[in-house]
Amino acid sequence: MKPTASQASELPAGLRRDLSDIAGPGGLLTDPADRWPYGYDNSQRHILPIAVFFATDAEQIPPLVALCNAHRLAITARGRGTGTTGASVPAPGGLVVSFERMRQIRRIDAADRLAVVEPGVLNQTLQEAAAEHGLFWPPDPSSAAFCTIGGNLACNAAGPRAVKYGTTRDATLGLHAVTGAGAAIRTGVATTKGVVGYDLTRLLIGSEGTLALITEATLRLTPLPETKRTLRALYRDIEAAADAVAAIMAQPVTPCALEFMDAAALESVRRYSDPGIPDAVRALLMIEVDGPAAGMDAAVASIARAARNPGLMDLGTAHDAAEVEALWKTRKALSPAMRHLAPKKINEDIVVPVSQLAVLIAGLERLAEERGIRIVNYGHAGNGNIHVNLLLDPAVPGESERAEQCLSAVFDLVLALGGTLSGEHGVGLVKRPFVARELDPAAIGLMRAIKRQFDPNGILNPDKGLPEAAKD
Amino acid sequence: MKPTASQASELPAGLRRDLSDIAGPGGLLTDPADRWPYGYDNSQRHILPIAVFFATDAEQIPPLVALCNAHRLAITARGRGTGTTGASVPAPGGLVVSFERMRQIRRIDAADRLAVVEPGVLNQTLQEAAAEHGLFWPPDPSSAAFCTIGGNLACNAAGPRAVKYGTTRDATLGLHAVTGAGAAIRTGVATTKGVVGYDLTRLLIGSEGTLALITEATLRLTPLPETKRTLRALYRDIEAAADAVAAIMAQPVTPCALEFMDAAALESVRRYSDPGIPDAVRALLMIEVDGPAAGMDAAVASIARAARNPGLMDLGTAHDAAEVEALWKTRKALSPAMRHLAPKKINEDIVVPVSQLAVLIAGLERLAEERGIRIVNYGHAGNGNIHVNLLLDPAVPGESERAEQCLSAVFDLVLALGGTLSGEHGVGLVKRPFVARELDPAAIGLMRAIKRQFDPNGILNPDKGLPEAAKD
Repeated sequence: MKPTASQASELPAGLRRDLSDIAGPGGLLTDPADRWPYGYDNSQRHILPIAVFFATDAEQIPPLVALCNAHRLAITARGRGTGTTGASVPAPGGLVVSFERMRQIRRIDAADRLAVVEPGVLNQTLQEAAAEHGLFWPPDPSSAAFCTIGGNLACNAAGPRAVKYGTTRDATLGLHAVTGAGAAIRTGVATTKGVVGYDLTRLLIGSEGTLALITEATLRLTPLPETKRTLRALYRDIEAAADAVAAIMAQPVTPCALEFMDAAALESVRRYSDPGIPDAVRALLMIEVDGPAAGMDAAVASIARAARNPGLMDLGTAHDAAEVEALWKTRKALSPAMRHLAPKKINEDIVVPVSQLAVLIAGLERLAEERGIRIVNYGHAGNGNIHVNLLLDPAVPGESERAEQCLSAVFDLVLALGGTLSGEHGVGLVKRPFVARELDPAAIGLMRAIKRQFDPNGILNPDKGLPEAAKD
Repeated sequence: MKPTASQASELPAGLRRDLSDIAGPGGLLTDPADRWPYGYDNSQRHILPIAVFFATDAEQIPPLVALCNAHRLAITARGRGTGTTGASVPAPGGLVVSFERMRQIRRIDAADRLAVVEPGVLNQTLQEAAAEHGLFWPPDPSSAAFCTIGGNLACNAAGPRAVKYGTTRDATLGLHAVTGAGAAIRTGVATTKGVVGYDLTRLLIGSEGTLALITEATLRLTPLPETKRTLRALYRDIEAAADAVAAIMAQPVTPCALEFMDAAALESVRRYSDPGIPDAVRALLMIEVDGPAAGMDAAVASIARAARNPGLMDLGTAHDAAEVEALWKTRKALSPAMRHLAPKKINEDIVVPVSQLAVLIAGLERLAEERGIRIVNYGHAGNGNIHVNLLLDPAVPGESERAEQCLSAVFDLVLALGGTLSGEHGVGLVKRPFVARELDPAAIGLMRAIKRQFDPNGILNPDKGLPEAAKD
């Protein structure tokens, strides 16, 4: 039974005192105005939590979880709320546990190429600290300056660099966590190899706080490349760009970013800035290559060979930092530009095999026309990870419904091409209704069983990630 | 209750007929002489299976598992039996399911950088097929010519290349499998990103056939490097070599192999071949660097700078294929050489953080002296993954006991240094008694719960991997 709105606002005095005792001075917010900002993320969903608990020490978590179990109080872990799926939006009447105050980098070791961090450390803070040792942590979501490592772990975050360096799951060695049953566990290793016991580390990564609360992470770091070069390729049509992506991924030099924009994306940018791109250009690739300075010319030449095809209109290398910045500005102008194009956008992060990109984009264009919904596509083409944006005006009668139907058709298309519904944003609340289309029932059954083992009372981030059970 | 030896040899006629019906003509071995070779692996353990079932089609597996559940017949999956831990040694009275006849490579796609294979494909067969597309699959255990992908998945196999390219877990995208409950499941994705549902793929990898039988794998391939160069570095003492390993791993050029031999290993080789290494050399590193030809000189120079320290006696580059082969011959002569040194060796594959290598080796030398056991060390130093070989003669009174005590002390040392008991060989039968020293009780409890969910009757490879439960 879900609590009503009035229940959601009333924290019993005894429970409040017990929470406060664990939290310590200043560690619990109960005033509605104070807890309001902890009710939403970037998904535009909002549910007011019953209270906000600021974790400052891993030792607090087992008694906190025990207390919440005794009261059947739902817990939603939160970093900085930059997710896009509602995964950190609390359950109605539930508690938010914010890890933003656990922001200590415990250790960085260059020979072991690892960092040990608390979950509230910002991605960018870690990058800066690692850079002092000549290292970096591969995940680079566009929110890196504001998002936490804990949040990156929760949704298996990635970003442009993943095409060469992998995702959070590839870049994590071990975790400390507290399960929904209140048990503190260690998972994984502090080494780059290890095969003792089942891999609970990667089971927790991407589970959106539904299995355990992560209190510490041992992350695998990678040496910073010596140099980087940025190219811009302009194509006559989407097929030519997609062919280039496939050709680039089929040759030996893996770029460290292979970003894509379709014609609608370019048009969006043109409305609000001048990217200096001719109107006849229907698709753009931004390609970054990193590595040792000595091999850079040859690496760029190899990429350029693969990028060239009859549909290529222009291929250029940025010559200085300002030109690189201008290129990324075009790419980064997209998200804000779209806010001006329509009152609402549905931003998806589907993935298809790279070989299917052209078919995907053609299918999306057809759907946009058939359903009368404007669709703008851009994203991490080297992984086949496309951010599909459906733009709509909810004030136009029937448009919301048409957009929902169109979205549903987009997901069917993606799955028909052998893809997946989420590459790096996760499932949260917003994609939950579609998960059962991708996963088979037996696998979902096992995932539910695992959820019950980790969290017998179902208090950890309920109603997220896995599809709703028939018996709910 | 475990079956007795006589039970183990008697397959009831009805069950035999049912197994034979699923297997099809020639698909079931019941004669003791025929099934004898399916009772052992490279661990020197042997248990005669009650029958050997040759899987030829994934469709056979659900009815097979259902049948075995009905009869509570244990199933041990088997590739080619090259494992070293007894993980593919059957349970007493149990069935071996051999996947050696499921050896079809279904698909290799260069743009998607993936291969879809049946579990019985040999590692080397896949490498040859991938190479035609300019790609390779990173795991390269020394048994690559004889071991199967299914076996690689079961024990999360690695090899020298893992230091740069990762292990099986890093190089697998998705699986088809049949759980111990007989349910066919799909896990993971066919793309390089994906975060829908919990990560069952990596949960199955390394689980040694205790959760499910893998019937198909989608593997992530990597572009073949353009060139490779091999270096040999000789050191005055182990500390100097360990310092060089740490320095190499702390600079930006990651070698594609960073192999180590200690003084005892060099001495072993010298007895049976002439590696041309002066007696004063107490440690050797073999370093391979791969990548684009254009950057190779600079990459080698960077590695060489890191390899140089006051303890370096000689640093040389192999100038042609024959010299490279001679270097690897020294490394590969180790395992057979040790067979001549002592009637028995206990070969472990522990891992410590790279920064702890010198402390580890010093500790091992101390233990060898204290316990009167000869210890020879070599392995994948870039991962901190050392093959510790305890040489003994069981005919010498008390030597087996001293070796066992010494091994126990080795494991304590490894764990005290923040390491793990197995890097790439797995747990199987032989390391099972030590697992509880590394994993915490709460994590083991969750692993047992997961095992029960996947395999409620405990028929899949019983008595492997996880420590024996108190109630057993």
